[in-house]
Amino acid sequence: MENIQGLTIINTGNGKGKTTAALGLALRAWGNGLKVLILQFIKGNWKYGELKAMQQLAPNLVIRQMGEGFTQREQEAESEKHRLAAQKTIEIAKQEMESGCWDMIILDELNYAIKFGLIEVDMVLEMIALKPKQMHLVITGRDAKEEIIACADLVTEMKEVKHPYKAGIKAQRGIEF
Amino acid sequence: MENIQGLTIINTGNGKGKTTAALGLALRAWGNGLKVLILQFIKGNWKYGELKAMQQLAPNLVIRQMGEGFTQREQEAESEKHRLAAQKTIEIAKQEMESGCWDMIILDELNYAIKFGLIEVDMVLEMIALKPKQMHLVITGRDAKEEIIACADLVTEMKEVKHPYKAGIKAQRGIEF
Repeated sequence: MENIQGLTIINTGNGKGKTTAALGLALRAWGNGLKVLILQFIKGNWKYGELKAMQQLAPNLVIRQMGEGFTQREQEAESEKHRLAAQKTIEIAKQEMESGCWDMIILDELNYAIKFGLIEVDMVLEMIALKPKQMHLVITGRDAKEEIIACADLVTEMKEVKHPYKAGIKAQRGIEF
Repeated sequence: MENIQGLTIINTGNGKGKTTAALGLALRAWGNGLKVLILQFIKGNWKYGELKAMQQLAPNLVIRQMGEGFTQREQEAESEKHRLAAQKTIEIAKQEMESGCWDMIILDELNYAIKFGLIEVDMVLEMIALKPKQMHLVITGRDAKEEIIACADLVTEMKEVKHPYKAGIKAQRGIEF
Protein backbone atom coordinates (compact mmCIF):
# COMPACT_ATOMS: atom_id res chain seq x y z
CA MET A 1 0.00 0.00 0.00
CA GLU A 2 1.25 3.40 -1.00
CA ASN A 3 2.37 5.62 1.84
CA ILE A 4 0.16 8.63 1.26
CA GLN A 5 0.62 11.73 3.32
CA GLY A 6 -2.44 13.88 2.80
CA LEU A 7 -1.59 17.54 2.41
CA THR A 8 -3.37 20.68 3.50
CA ILE A 9 -3.09 23.01 0.53
CA ILE A 10 -4.01 26.69 0.37
CA ASN A 11 -4.40 28.81 -2.76
CA THR A 12 -4.68 32.43 -1.74
CA GLY A 13 -3.72 35.91 -3.05
CA ASN A 14 -5.35 38.69 -5.06
CA GLY A 15 -4.63 37.15 -8.48
CA LYS A 16 -6.41 34.68 -10.73
CA GLY A 17 -6.02 30.93 -10.56
CA LYS A 18 -6.91 30.04 -6.97
CA THR A 19 -10.08 28.16 -7.89
CA THR A 20 -8.91 27.14 -11.37
CA ALA A 21 -5.75 25.57 -9.92
CA ALA A 22 -7.93 23.67 -7.43
CA LEU A 23 -10.06 22.55 -10.36
CA GLY A 24 -6.94 21.36 -12.20
CA LEU A 25 -5.81 19.55 -9.07
CA ALA A 26 -9.22 17.87 -8.84
CA LEU A 27 -8.86 16.74 -12.43
CA ARG A 28 -5.35 15.40 -11.82
CA ALA A 29 -6.47 13.57 -8.69
CA TRP A 30 -9.50 12.15 -10.48
CA GLY A 31 -7.28 10.89 -13.30
CA ASN A 32 -5.26 9.05 -10.67
CA GLY A 33 -8.36 7.29 -9.44
CA LEU A 34 -8.80 9.43 -6.33
CA LYS A 35 -12.25 10.42 -5.09
CA VAL A 36 -12.76 14.16 -4.92
CA LEU A 37 -15.46 16.21 -3.19
CA ILE A 38 -15.77 19.95 -3.79
CA LEU A 39 -17.83 22.08 -1.42
CA GLN A 40 -18.41 25.64 -2.54
CA PHE A 41 -18.84 28.19 0.19
CA ILE A 42 -19.78 30.98 -2.18
CA LYS A 43 -22.56 29.97 -4.54
CA GLY A 44 -22.12 31.13 -8.09
CA ASN A 45 -18.35 31.29 -7.93
CA TRP A 46 -18.19 28.28 -10.22
CA LYS A 47 -20.19 28.69 -13.34
CA TYR A 48 -21.94 26.66 -15.93
CA GLY A 49 -18.75 25.86 -17.87
CA GLU A 50 -16.82 23.98 -15.25
CA LEU A 51 -19.90 22.48 -13.65
CA LYS A 52 -20.84 20.92 -16.99
CA ALA A 53 -17.30 19.63 -17.49
CA MET A 54 -17.22 18.22 -13.96
CA GLN A 55 -20.41 16.25 -14.55
CA GLN A 56 -18.39 14.11 -16.97
CA LEU A 57 -16.27 12.98 -14.04
CA ALA A 58 -18.99 11.77 -11.66
CA PRO A 59 -19.25 9.76 -9.44
CA ASN A 60 -15.60 10.04 -8.38
CA LEU A 61 -15.80 13.79 -8.51
CA VAL A 62 -18.72 15.55 -6.83
CA ILE A 63 -19.41 19.29 -6.51
CA ARG A 64 -21.88 20.62 -3.99
CA GLN A 65 -22.85 24.28 -4.01
CA MET A 66 -23.49 25.09 -0.38
CA GLY A 67 -23.74 28.87 -0.11
CA GLU A 68 -26.91 30.92 -0.10
CA GLY A 69 -25.63 33.48 -2.56
CA PHE A 70 -23.61 35.62 -0.18
CA THR A 71 -21.98 38.69 -1.64
CA GLN A 72 -20.06 41.39 0.15
CA ARG A 73 -22.92 43.78 -0.50
CA GLU A 74 -25.43 41.72 1.52
CA GLN A 75 -27.53 43.63 3.98
CA GLU A 76 -26.90 43.01 7.64
CA ALA A 77 -30.38 41.49 8.01
CA GLU A 78 -29.42 38.74 5.58
CA SER A 79 -26.08 37.90 7.10
CA GLU A 80 -27.41 35.48 9.72
CA LYS A 81 -28.72 33.28 6.90
CA HIS A 82 -25.26 33.23 5.30
CA ARG A 83 -23.52 32.53 8.61
CA LEU A 84 -25.77 29.55 9.17
CA ALA A 85 -25.18 28.27 5.63
CA ALA A 86 -21.40 28.60 5.96
CA GLN A 87 -21.33 26.94 9.38
CA LYS A 88 -23.48 24.11 8.11
CA THR A 89 -21.00 23.64 5.27
CA ILE A 90 -18.16 23.30 7.79
CA GLU A 91 -20.19 20.66 9.61
CA ILE A 92 -20.78 18.79 6.36
CA ALA A 93 -17.06 19.02 5.53
CA LYS A 94 -16.26 17.45 8.90
CA GLN A 95 -18.76 14.64 8.36
CA GLU A 96 -17.45 13.96 4.86
CA MET A 97 -13.87 13.88 6.18
CA GLU A 98 -14.82 11.44 8.87
CA SER A 99 -16.75 9.26 6.42
CA GLY A 100 -13.44 8.21 4.84
CA CYS A 101 -15.10 8.31 1.41
CA TRP A 102 -12.86 10.98 -0.10
CA ASP A 103 -9.19 11.19 -1.03
CA MET A 104 -9.42 14.94 -1.58
CA ILE A 105 -11.83 17.56 -0.33
CA ILE A 106 -11.74 21.05 -1.82
CA LEU A 107 -13.31 23.85 0.21
CA ASP A 108 -13.70 26.53 -2.38
CA GLU A 109 -13.70 30.15 -1.14
CA LEU A 110 -13.50 29.14 2.49
CA ASN A 111 -10.99 31.95 3.11
CA TYR A 112 -13.51 34.41 1.72
CA ALA A 113 -16.20 33.11 4.06
CA ILE A 114 -13.83 33.62 7.00
CA LYS A 115 -12.81 37.07 5.80
CA PHE A 116 -16.42 38.25 5.75
CA GLY A 117 -17.16 36.92 9.18
CA LEU A 118 -19.39 34.01 8.17
CA ILE A 119 -17.11 31.52 9.95
CA GLU A 120 -14.70 31.84 12.88
CA VAL A 121 -11.08 30.88 12.29
CA ASP A 122 -11.24 28.53 15.29
CA MET A 123 -14.01 26.51 13.67
CA VAL A 124 -11.81 26.02 10.63
CA LEU A 125 -8.73 25.07 12.66
CA GLU A 126 -10.83 22.52 14.52
CA MET A 127 -12.00 21.09 11.20
CA ILE A 128 -8.46 20.91 9.79
CA ALA A 129 -7.39 19.00 12.89
CA LEU A 130 -9.91 16.29 11.98
CA LYS A 131 -8.41 15.72 8.52
CA PRO A 132 -7.63 12.02 7.99
CA LYS A 133 -3.90 11.50 7.56
CA GLN A 134 -4.16 10.26 3.99
CA MET A 135 -6.71 12.79 2.75
CA HIS A 136 -5.75 15.94 0.87
CA LEU A 137 -7.55 19.12 1.88
CA VAL A 138 -7.55 22.11 -0.46
CA ILE A 139 -8.72 25.55 0.68
CA THR A 140 -9.10 28.50 -1.68
CA GLY A 141 -9.86 32.19 -1.38
CA ARG A 142 -7.96 35.42 -0.98
CA ASP A 143 -6.60 36.70 2.33
CA ALA A 144 -5.95 33.34 4.00
CA LYS A 145 -5.55 33.86 7.75
CA GLU A 146 -2.11 33.41 9.27
CA GLU A 147 -3.38 30.74 11.67
CA ILE A 148 -4.60 28.66 8.73
CA ILE A 149 -1.39 29.15 6.75
CA ALA A 150 0.50 28.02 9.85
CA CYS A 151 -1.14 24.59 9.81
CA ALA A 152 -0.97 24.07 6.02
CA ASP A 153 1.68 22.07 4.14
CA LEU A 154 1.56 23.83 0.79
CA VAL A 155 0.61 27.48 0.42
CA THR A 156 0.66 29.40 -2.85
CA GLU A 157 -0.10 33.06 -3.31
CA MET A 158 -1.62 33.87 -6.69
CA LYS A 159 -0.42 37.41 -7.18
CA GLU A 160 -1.90 39.78 -9.71
CA VAL A 161 0.80 41.16 -11.98
CA LYS A 162 -1.42 42.46 -14.78
CA HIS A 163 -5.19 42.31 -15.19
CA PRO A 164 -7.25 42.97 -18.32
CA TYR A 165 -9.99 44.83 -16.41
CA LYS A 166 -7.46 47.56 -15.84
CA ALA A 167 -7.05 47.90 -19.60
CA GLY A 168 -10.86 48.12 -19.93
CA ILE A 169 -11.34 44.58 -21.26
CA LYS A 170 -14.56 42.92 -20.11
CA ALA A 171 -14.99 39.45 -18.58
CA GLN A 172 -14.86 36.72 -21.22
CA ARG A 173 -16.92 33.55 -21.50
CA GLY A 174 -14.69 30.52 -20.88
CA ILE A 175 -12.12 32.60 -19.00
CA GLU A 176 -13.87 34.39 -16.17
CA PHE A 177 -17.02 32.30 -16.20
CA MET B 1 -22.59 37.17 -32.07
CA GLU B 2 -20.74 37.54 -28.84
CA ASN B 3 -17.98 40.13 -28.84
CA ILE B 4 -15.06 37.99 -27.75
CA GLN B 5 -11.74 39.57 -27.03
CA GLY B 6 -9.18 36.81 -26.88
CA LEU B 7 -6.72 37.26 -24.04
CA THR B 8 -3.04 36.48 -23.75
CA ILE B 9 -2.67 34.96 -20.30
CA ILE B 10 0.55 34.14 -18.46
CA ASN B 11 0.90 31.98 -15.36
CA THR B 12 4.40 32.36 -14.00
CA GLY B 13 6.23 32.38 -10.65
CA ASN B 14 8.11 29.89 -8.47
CA GLY B 15 4.98 28.45 -6.82
CA LYS B 16 2.57 25.65 -7.65
CA GLY B 17 -0.52 26.09 -9.79
CA LYS B 18 0.78 27.47 -13.08
CA THR B 19 -0.05 24.38 -15.11
CA THR B 20 -2.94 23.26 -12.88
CA ALA B 21 -4.64 26.65 -13.26
CA ALA B 22 -4.22 26.37 -17.04
CA LEU B 23 -5.77 22.91 -16.80
CA GLY B 24 -8.70 24.34 -14.83
CA LEU B 25 -9.07 27.09 -17.41
CA ALA B 26 -9.12 24.47 -20.17
CA LEU B 27 -11.87 22.63 -18.32
CA ARG B 28 -13.89 25.83 -17.85
CA ALA B 29 -13.48 26.77 -21.50
CA TRP B 30 -14.42 23.25 -22.60
CA GLY B 31 -17.54 23.39 -20.48
CA ASN B 32 -18.49 26.57 -22.31
CA GLY B 33 -18.23 24.79 -25.65
CA LEU B 34 -14.88 26.27 -26.60
CA LYS B 35 -12.28 24.20 -28.45
CA VAL B 36 -9.00 23.92 -26.60
CA LEU B 37 -5.59 22.76 -27.79
CA ILE B 38 -2.75 22.16 -25.33
CA LEU B 39 0.82 21.93 -26.59
CA GLN B 40 3.37 20.79 -24.04
CA PHE B 41 6.88 22.08 -24.51
CA ILE B 42 8.33 19.91 -21.78
CA LYS B 43 7.34 16.28 -22.16
CA GLY B 44 6.44 14.53 -18.99
CA ASN B 45 5.32 17.68 -17.21
CA TRP B 46 1.75 16.47 -17.41
CA LYS B 47 1.30 13.02 -16.09
CA TYR B 48 -0.96 10.07 -16.42
CA GLY B 49 -3.63 11.51 -14.13
CA GLU B 50 -4.57 14.61 -16.03
CA LEU B 51 -3.95 13.04 -19.41
CA LYS B 52 -6.46 10.33 -18.58
CA ALA B 53 -8.99 12.88 -17.35
CA MET B 54 -8.48 15.02 -20.43
CA GLN B 55 -9.23 12.08 -22.72
CA GLN B 56 -12.81 12.27 -21.45
CA LEU B 57 -13.07 15.70 -23.00
CA ALA B 58 -11.96 14.90 -26.58
CA PRO B 59 -12.42 16.01 -29.33
CA ASN B 60 -12.98 19.57 -28.12
CA LEU B 61 -9.94 19.33 -25.91
CA VAL B 62 -6.71 17.97 -27.34
CA ILE B 63 -3.30 17.63 -25.69
CA ARG B 64 -0.15 17.11 -27.71
CA GLN B 65 3.12 16.34 -25.99
CA MET B 66 5.72 17.97 -28.19
CA GLY B 67 8.98 17.94 -26.27
CA GLU B 68 11.74 15.39 -26.59
CA GLY B 69 12.18 14.99 -22.88
CA PHE B 70 14.32 18.04 -22.20
CA THR B 71 15.55 18.49 -18.66
CA GLN B 72 17.88 21.07 -17.27
CA ARG B 73 20.52 18.40 -16.79
CA GLU B 74 20.74 17.58 -20.50
CA GLN B 75 24.18 17.37 -21.97
CA GLU B 76 25.17 20.06 -24.44
CA ALA B 77 25.37 17.47 -27.21
CA GLU B 78 21.68 16.79 -26.80
CA SER B 79 20.57 20.39 -26.73
CA GLU B 80 20.32 20.85 -30.50
CA LYS B 81 17.66 18.12 -30.57
CA HIS B 82 15.64 19.95 -27.91
CA ARG B 83 16.03 23.30 -29.65
CA LEU B 84 14.68 21.82 -32.85
CA ALA B 85 11.77 20.19 -31.02
CA ALA B 86 10.85 23.44 -29.24
CA GLN B 87 11.11 25.52 -32.40
CA LYS B 88 8.98 23.03 -34.28
CA THR B 89 6.39 23.35 -31.52
CA ILE B 90 6.30 27.12 -32.02
CA GLU B 91 5.74 26.55 -35.73
CA ILE B 92 2.90 24.16 -34.98
CA ALA B 93 1.38 26.66 -32.54
CA LYS B 94 1.44 29.30 -35.30
CA GLN B 95 -0.21 26.95 -37.79
CA GLU B 96 -2.87 25.94 -35.29
CA MET B 97 -3.57 29.59 -34.49
CA GLU B 98 -3.92 30.42 -38.14
CA SER B 99 -6.17 27.40 -38.76
CA GLY B 100 -8.93 29.12 -36.80
CA CYS B 101 -9.89 25.75 -35.28
CA TRP B 102 -9.24 26.66 -31.65
CA ASP B 103 -10.80 29.08 -29.19
CA MET B 104 -7.97 28.59 -26.71
CA ILE B 105 -4.41 27.38 -27.13
CA ILE B 106 -2.33 26.59 -24.05
CA LEU B 107 1.45 26.54 -24.46
CA ASP B 108 2.52 24.69 -21.36
CA GLU B 109 6.02 25.45 -20.03
CA LEU B 110 6.86 27.75 -22.91
CA ASN B 111 8.54 30.16 -20.47
CA TYR B 112 10.75 27.30 -19.30
CA ALA B 113 11.77 26.52 -22.88
CA ILE B 114 12.74 30.18 -23.35
CA LYS B 115 14.60 30.28 -20.06
CA PHE B 116 16.80 27.35 -21.03
CA GLY B 117 17.61 28.79 -24.41
CA LEU B 118 15.57 26.39 -26.53
CA ILE B 119 13.61 29.27 -28.06
CA GLU B 120 14.41 32.95 -28.64
CA VAL B 121 12.08 35.52 -27.09
CA ASP B 122 11.65 37.18 -30.50
CA MET B 123 10.22 33.97 -31.98
CA VAL B 124 7.61 33.94 -29.22
CA LEU B 125 6.72 37.62 -29.64
CA GLU B 126 6.28 37.02 -33.36
CA MET B 127 3.98 34.10 -32.60
CA ILE B 128 1.91 36.13 -30.10
CA ALA B 129 1.48 38.83 -32.75
CA LEU B 130 -0.24 36.24 -34.97
CA LYS B 131 -2.87 35.40 -32.34
CA PRO B 132 -6.37 35.67 -33.81
CA LYS B 133 -8.32 38.44 -32.07
CA GLN B 134 -10.93 36.12 -30.60
CA MET B 135 -8.59 33.32 -29.52
CA HIS B 136 -7.28 32.99 -25.98
CA LEU B 137 -3.60 32.14 -25.61
CA VAL B 138 -2.30 30.78 -22.30
CA ILE B 139 1.43 30.51 -21.57
CA THR B 140 2.81 28.83 -18.47
CA GLY B 141 6.21 28.42 -16.86
CA ARG B 142 8.33 30.20 -14.29
CA ASP B 143 10.47 33.25 -15.04
CA ALA B 144 8.33 34.75 -17.82
CA LYS B 145 10.38 37.30 -19.75
CA GLU B 146 9.53 40.98 -19.37
CA GLU B 147 8.94 41.37 -23.11
CA ILE B 148 6.30 38.63 -23.01
CA ILE B 149 4.64 40.03 -19.90
CA ALA B 150 4.53 43.39 -21.68
CA CYS B 151 2.32 42.03 -24.46
CA ALA B 152 0.05 39.92 -22.25
CA ASP B 153 -3.38 40.94 -20.94
CA LEU B 154 -3.52 38.86 -17.78
CA VAL B 155 -0.42 37.88 -15.82
CA THR B 156 -0.45 36.01 -12.54
CA GLU B 157 2.55 35.14 -10.43
CA MET B 158 2.12 31.90 -8.48
CA LYS B 159 4.30 32.60 -5.49
CA GLU B 160 5.55 29.91 -3.15
CA VAL B 161 4.63 30.75 0.44
CA LYS B 162 5.12 27.30 1.94
CA HIS B 163 6.14 24.02 0.33
CA PRO B 164 5.94 20.52 1.78
CA TYR B 165 9.31 19.46 0.30
CA LYS B 166 10.87 21.84 2.77
CA ALA B 167 9.21 19.95 5.59
CA GLY B 168 10.55 16.69 4.11
CA ILE B 169 7.24 15.49 2.69
CA LYS B 170 7.59 13.57 -0.56
CA ALA B 171 5.68 14.14 -3.82
CA GLN B 172 2.18 12.65 -3.68
CA ARG B 173 0.23 10.83 -6.35
CA GLY B 174 -2.70 12.98 -7.48
CA ILE B 175 -1.05 16.16 -6.24
CA GLU B 176 2.33 16.44 -7.86
CA PHE B 177 1.74 13.88 -10.59
